Amino acid sequence: MNQKTQSPAAKIRHALTIKREEDFAQWYQQVVSEGEMAEESGVRGCMVIKPWGYGIWERIQKLMDARIKEAGVDNCYFPLFIPLSYFAKEADHVDGFAKEMAVVTHHRLIADGKGGLIPDPEAKLEEPLIVRPTSETVIGAAMARWVQSWRDLPLMVNQWANVVRWEMRTRMFLRTSEFLWQEGHTAHADREDALKETLRALEMYRDFAENVLAMPVVAGEKPENERFPGAVATYSIEAMMQDGKALQAGTSHYLGTGFAEAAGIRYQNREGEQALAHTTSWGVSTRMIGGLIMTHGDDDGLRVPPAIAPHQIIILPMLREDDGDEALLAYCEELRRELVKLSALGEPLRVLLDKRAGKATQKRWAWVKKGAPIILEIGGRDAANGQVSALRRDALWREDAKVNFVAQAKEAFIAAAAAELESIQANLHAQATAQRDANITRGLTTLDELAAYFGEDKKYPGWVEMGWSRPTGAALDKVVEQLKALKLTIRNTPMDGRPVEGNCPFTGEPAVEWIYVARSY
Amino acid sequence: MNQKTQSPAAKIRHALTIKREEDFAQWYQQVVSEGEMAEESGVRGCMVIKPWGYGIWERIQKLMDARIKEAGVDNCYFPLFIPLSYFAKEADHVDGFAKEMAVVTHHRLIADGKGGLIPDPEAKLEEPLIVRPTSETVIGAAMARWVQSWRDLPLMVNQWANVVRWEMRTRMFLRTSEFLWQEGHTAHADREDALKETLRALEMYRDFAENVLAMPVVAGEKPENERFPGAVATYSIEAMMQDGKALQAGTSHYLGTGFAEAAGIRYQNREGEQALAHTTSWGVSTRMIGGLIMTHGDDDGLRVPPAIAPHQIIILPMLREDDGDEALLAYCEELRRELVKLSALGEPLRVLLDKRAGKATQKRWAWVKKGAPIILEIGGRDAANGQVSALRRDALWREDAKVNFVAQAKEAFIAAAAAELESIQANLHAQATAQRDANITRGLTTLDELAAYFGEDKKYPGWVEMGWSRPTGAALDKVVEQLKALKLTIRNTPMDGRPVEGNCPFTGEPAVEWIYVARSY
Repeated sequence: MNQKTQSPAAKIRHALTIKREEDFAQWYQQVVSEGEMAEESGVRGCMVIKPWGYGIWERIQKLMDARIKEAGVDNCYFPLFIPLSYFAKEADHVDGFAKEMAVVTHHRLIADGKGGLIPDPEAKLEEPLIVRPTSETVIGAAMARWVQSWRDLPLMVNQWANVVRWEMRTRMFLRTSEFLWQEGHTAHADREDALKETLRALEMYRDFAENVLAMPVVAGEKPENERFPGAVATYSIEAMMQDGKALQAGTSHYLGTGFAEAAGIRYQNREGEQALAHTTSWGVSTRMIGGLIMTHGDDDGLRVPPAIAPHQIIILPMLREDDGDEALLAYCEELRRELVKLSALGEPLRVLLDKRAGKATQKRWAWVKKGAPIILEIGGRDAANGQVSALRRDALWREDAKVNFVAQAKEAFIAAAAAELESIQANLHAQATAQRDANITRGLTTLDELAAYFGEDKKYPGWVEMGWSRPTGAALDKVVEQLKALKLTIRNTPMDGRPVEGNCPFTGEPAVEWIYVARSY
Repeated sequence: MNQKTQSPAAKIRHALTIKREEDFAQWYQQVVSEGEMAEESGVRGCMVIKPWGYGIWERIQKLMDARIKEAGVDNCYFPLFIPLSYFAKEADHVDGFAKEMAVVTHHRLIADGKGGLIPDPEAKLEEPLIVRPTSETVIGAAMARWVQSWRDLPLMVNQWANVVRWEMRTRMFLRTSEFLWQEGHTAHADREDALKETLRALEMYRDFAENVLAMPVVAGEKPENERFPGAVATYSIEAMMQDGKALQAGTSHYLGTGFAEAAGIRYQNREGEQALAHTTSWGVSTRMIGGLIMTHGDDDGLRVPPAIAPHQIIILPMLREDDGDEALLAYCEELRRELVKLSALGEPLRVLLDKRAGKATQKRWAWVKKGAPIILEIGGRDAANGQVSALRRDALWREDAKVNFVAQAKEAFIAAAAAELESIQANLHAQATAQRDANITRGLTTLDELAAYFGEDKKYPGWVEMGWSRPTGAALDKVVEQLKALKLTIRNTPMDGRPVEGNCPFTGEPAVEWIYVARSY
């Protein structure tokens, strides 16, 4: 791994006890915990999302929702429970999810006669209800009611909701039994229009990841074996985490007419004939927050890009619990008021004056671990002299291993604040892109080379880009098996139009597109 | 019912086929349906909230969330599933909800050998999980982890979530098995601070109902028998619907130390001793939308107060599918741009240019039924002459039974638009308040008088305000039985400080507070 630390590592005591290079998985858990993002809930596979983590999700919601509405998609809300029979209509779909469904079977509890409670046998449901793992089936049923004529198409809806997929091994944000997401569902007159919408959503996710999350991603099509259950084509954005693994951070599916047939989404076309709609679905989830952590976190905790930070600037008055505090707080409040008049990244600044009791140093490190982009420490003398001490989270350490606070005149800080935030946003994106690009390996042309490369004693091998012949069916199954033996998967095919050369390492046939091969979350 | 129609009823063909006075319940369903607010989902007791209904919910969320944050409450997210054992710790609480709990018993489906799927007996949960009907227990468990010392108090969190209470008889927005809500949960050092927060939340709801929803409410304490299961005191806001029934539109609970004891929320106080926290919870739900409909709807559909309308002004170009359309659309778009620069009710105007194909009259009536505050119809000639034709939804009909469009210069409309919206907001509030006040009856002093009053052949008897002695225990049970026989409940005790006189009609003892007695939703 080529991640550069910001200063001589030997000198620096980091805010976390576990470094990324020592144990990336443990480091991740520590960032989640010390950054007060989330914690175990006591309910199997479910987490509690704490204020800082949820604040990031609220920012994702707000900015993504604006893009979704801008595209003409209407928000709705559909039921949490889906009757089992709805699923059964689409065979591939139900097969894909049956193993991880939470099933509601009773609607009442009753005393068990031993002081406890049990599900009331008299209140057993005639048909079990599934807690939605995704909503194609129940939204398809609504679309079948709403769509009559070609005039009703395209029909585009979205919901922000919780979904449940029963996971055996969970990890906070990345894989939890319950998670939060948005799911867009659209119906179109034909394949062309549906595919256009599928790719529009994919591009919306790519742009969001790059420009809001500062997380570089590759947008491309998933191989056949990785398709959403029931889909004709699945596209994803894939990000590289700092351990070199891939994270699928958003997906968009062209569903063909299969779901429309199962739900009965038929319309009268311009020629007066009945036709099946072509549908799509697309979603991103709280998983994005896991991606954010593993893209931008460092050995001092999380670093949140300013565009997505609930608070961009933290003002920490160095309170002394004496007569001077009043003037200090007034100075800080005035500073806050001046800052929130400014805008950066297209929005007014988000500034928190943290007046809570507690030691200033402890509070500072709490905000460092949470990854607030800029931290201001202001003492009584600063207030008297019209100064602030400013710390950029993306430049935490000086060369001499001291915390990199820069003392400056208040006016100078205010004048530069918006540009500083935009610079942090750009810097995080540039660092992550450099990290990602440095860990993509090219030029491997045979399966043996691939095996040798990933077989080496390499902790973080990154991604391999190679051309392949896009095998299908049994030929693809064989490739998938070979890769599985190496703990590898095909992530997606980039859609940047670069010419492909050479032969497929799996089939020997001429390569027709590039793929990324990697370990993944 | 004293509701005044806006013009001679005999002349007017209303947009709905059912009038309020004919069948209020059916009228309600028709407003929900024709206003495209929501519909049956096909899943028992669950509804689909459609874009216009969900848009109103998004407005409620946005404006309520700002008030919640302003009070220093942090948003979080807690699990959908709650282990049965969590509930069992608070006896009153579990008793209150056991009859309406959706119970998850399995986490996988398996083929039944007959081509179908059944819950996999091998995947039966050791402990059933309850789909949250409310989250005191699971949030209490988190608070027990988070609270150590008096410095951690007050701890104030909120979540926006879906909850499930299995209802046998459901009605859209008012009583559905799944509904959306926010639930605030707070922990405090002592009774005084907790009670203060309980009443702060109540006042927040009262103010929101009056000033955002234009829905007059009475804020007060519920009688003992109507308390939230496990609460020490429950407060509510109660609104009067146009049929005279009461709707509980929001509640706030002081929970004492019972939930803290069950969950173990203990802290070290300033004296170094362990003490139990005092907790509160408070919530409003999608039920508010039902209240909105039954407060402001008329025989032409819903009327949405401008503060809560997803779109406040609808611009309807009278498209003719000819060469003139381009200039007309340009004129309308320019008008839209000028309007969104303005602010009313503290926010920029929300204006929709509805360019969809379709007959102008049909589109007009669709927006009338949805209750958009102002509808503009603009034809080619209007565009050429710099005019608009404006319709206020709260003044739909002229005396001569024509639709009350007012032709005016575009500039004049723009100059007055913000004031018009504020006038509609005030007018809806004034109408609803007058309606409510006209239907509160005072001066009944005995149970016989009460029985006689409600026993009369009165379709919409409204509320009765009377003094009572605040009986408890068995004495209260008797009162509740007597009222139940008349299909009545005690709604709450107003907290406006008016002196109380006379004797309690139930106990004969001196009255100590006022109560409202009413039929209710």
